[in-house]
Amino acid sequence: MIKIGIYGYGNLARGVEAAIKKNDDMELVAVFSRRDPSTVKIATKGVDVVSANDVTKYADKIDVLVLCGGSRTDLPVQTPELAKYFNVVDSFDTHAHVSEHFANVDRAALESKHIGVISTGWDPGMFSLNRAIMEAVLPDGQDYTFWGKGVSQGHSDAIRRIAGVKDARQYTVPVEAALEAVRAGKNPELTTRQKHTRLCYVVADEKDYARIEKEIKTMPDYFSDYDTTVNFISQEELDRDHKGLPHGGFVIRTGETSEGVKHVIEYNLKLDSNPQFTGSVLIAYARAAYRANKRGEAGARTVFDFAPKDISPVSYDELLKHTL
Amino acid sequence: MIKIGIYGYGNLARGVEAAIKKNDDMELVAVFSRRDPSTVKIATKGVDVVSANDVTKYADKIDVLVLCGGSRTDLPVQTPELAKYFNVVDSFDTHAHVSEHFANVDRAALESKHIGVISTGWDPGMFSLNRAIMEAVLPDGQDYTFWGKGVSQGHSDAIRRIAGVKDARQYTVPVEAALEAVRAGKNPELTTRQKHTRLCYVVADEKDYARIEKEIKTMPDYFSDYDTTVNFISQEELDRDHKGLPHGGFVIRTGETSEGVKHVIEYNLKLDSNPQFTGSVLIAYARAAYRANKRGEAGARTVFDFAPKDISPVSYDELLKHTL
Repeated sequence: MIKIGIYGYGNLARGVEAAIKKNDDMELVAVFSRRDPSTVKIATKGVDVVSANDVTKYADKIDVLVLCGGSRTDLPVQTPELAKYFNVVDSFDTHAHVSEHFANVDRAALESKHIGVISTGWDPGMFSLNRAIMEAVLPDGQDYTFWGKGVSQGHSDAIRRIAGVKDARQYTVPVEAALEAVRAGKNPELTTRQKHTRLCYVVADEKDYARIEKEIKTMPDYFSDYDTTVNFISQEELDRDHKGLPHGGFVIRTGETSEGVKHVIEYNLKLDSNPQFTGSVLIAYARAAYRANKRGEAGARTVFDFAPKDISPVSYDELLKHTL
Repeated sequence: MIKIGIYGYGNLARGVEAAIKKNDDMELVAVFSRRDPSTVKIATKGVDVVSANDVTKYADKIDVLVLCGGSRTDLPVQTPELAKYFNVVDSFDTHAHVSEHFANVDRAALESKHIGVISTGWDPGMFSLNRAIMEAVLPDGQDYTFWGKGVSQGHSDAIRRIAGVKDARQYTVPVEAALEAVRAGKNPELTTRQKHTRLCYVVADEKDYARIEKEIKTMPDYFSDYDTTVNFISQEELDRDHKGLPHGGFVIRTGETSEGVKHVIEYNLKLDSNPQFTGSVLIAYARAAYRANKRGEAGARTVFDFAPKDISPVSYDELLKHTL
């Protein structure tokens, strides 16, 4: 059994916890939280809930520590620090700082002889892996990534910070016509506005509707570059219809193997729960981290470093017989 | 530059030859044929065309030999034999004999300290790789593979062997309703007939139409288990509309990460040319074979053994910056 620890206990951590139950070779040993452990109720019985301050006491009891903090302030510090004591896996997703984060984790993990898998999940993660493989098998081509339909938590939060907004949920929606143009191999040049629309559900007092709608639609970075639709609904409707965290998206590569001979490769995801699927991917890469470390490897890793057999719960012989 | 040899010179070999031109780190050194070399016209200038009998003379001149023979009689003999002298890549696709073929290639390649990549292409190959990764990230689920719309050369040949048939082309077509049931997560139990239909274009004399149609539709293994449509057309129509070798297909996995929380992962291909895309995949795995051998590895390998970075033409640093 691979002994897993979870560091941080929010939505993603609950996804990781659920994923462990679906993998027979995994066992949850402890959950670490910065909150008072007595206030943290987890879903698995008989598992230690421990103060994050005491995490190093578990260095010999855990094979892989799955880090469930945020990319902005948590992971840049936590992943290199915890790689001094554990094999770690994170879902760092700030593209602009990936090389720096990789270098920091690599340094710590090489010194402590651990494996640090960074930036896994679905994007970055499965989408990155597919972009890399698609490019390798169809080098003369172009890839496109679309997200949605799904809930963007960052955009939902941005709406909730507007005065008068009681609650809100924002969906990112890919533009069907853009998807079709890409699939048709037209290599379109697509602006931000042409790729995705933004669909918002907002709870507020009726007197504030016009102002809130205007504030949303003109918000720089988040909404002003998009065609945005704002629907005002009741709290009951929002709670009933929009409490899930579905997401998904598309990676499509089109290209030629010779003049006029075209190919289309598409990978897409439709996820009922973004954090649960992300958690499930993290657990597959926790397996890879464990195995690589057992082989004597150390350092930072990404999805680009692992073969299918490294993440698979199935024996190589079974893969040959039933999956090839 | 990775020096490539091509063994056998049919449709697949021409696809490999085209793919080499799309990969800047590859160079075609020689094509080996069992035919008289003076009768074999290849598409690349300045490249040796050599009798297959003389292949071992190139042992020091070629980094990876790509084998383009058939799975039934060629590859079971050729891949183990040529792995004594070369790193090799093949597209062996007889599922029932994969384990045996792997063992034979492994034995020869370990002894000669070469890498032998077997069963690559798109299915087996990209589809196998995707089935394995999908299962790893969504272990509680079920996967389905559909093929088409595309030309099945084996089925086209079977029709051409019927008395009175002058020419024929057969398309395998996935049943849209079955695809939709799978995507909806219904985990349908699908019979052969429910997954694919077979669409045939046949050139023959009108007096033979009824008999030929009956012979096709009742042909065991090939057609009798399918809903088959037979269209009689002229040779001109067939030459004009059906001379390409398009293919493609779908791998779809659906599953749950917890009770009632469902996810759908789909990978699909639409290929203008089956042999050109297959050749392009073989070349990506030729790169992986070359690199693995340079690292001092030996033995049989499949798509399950290689990480994205092993097949990628792009540097790791570039992958981190632009693909992650």
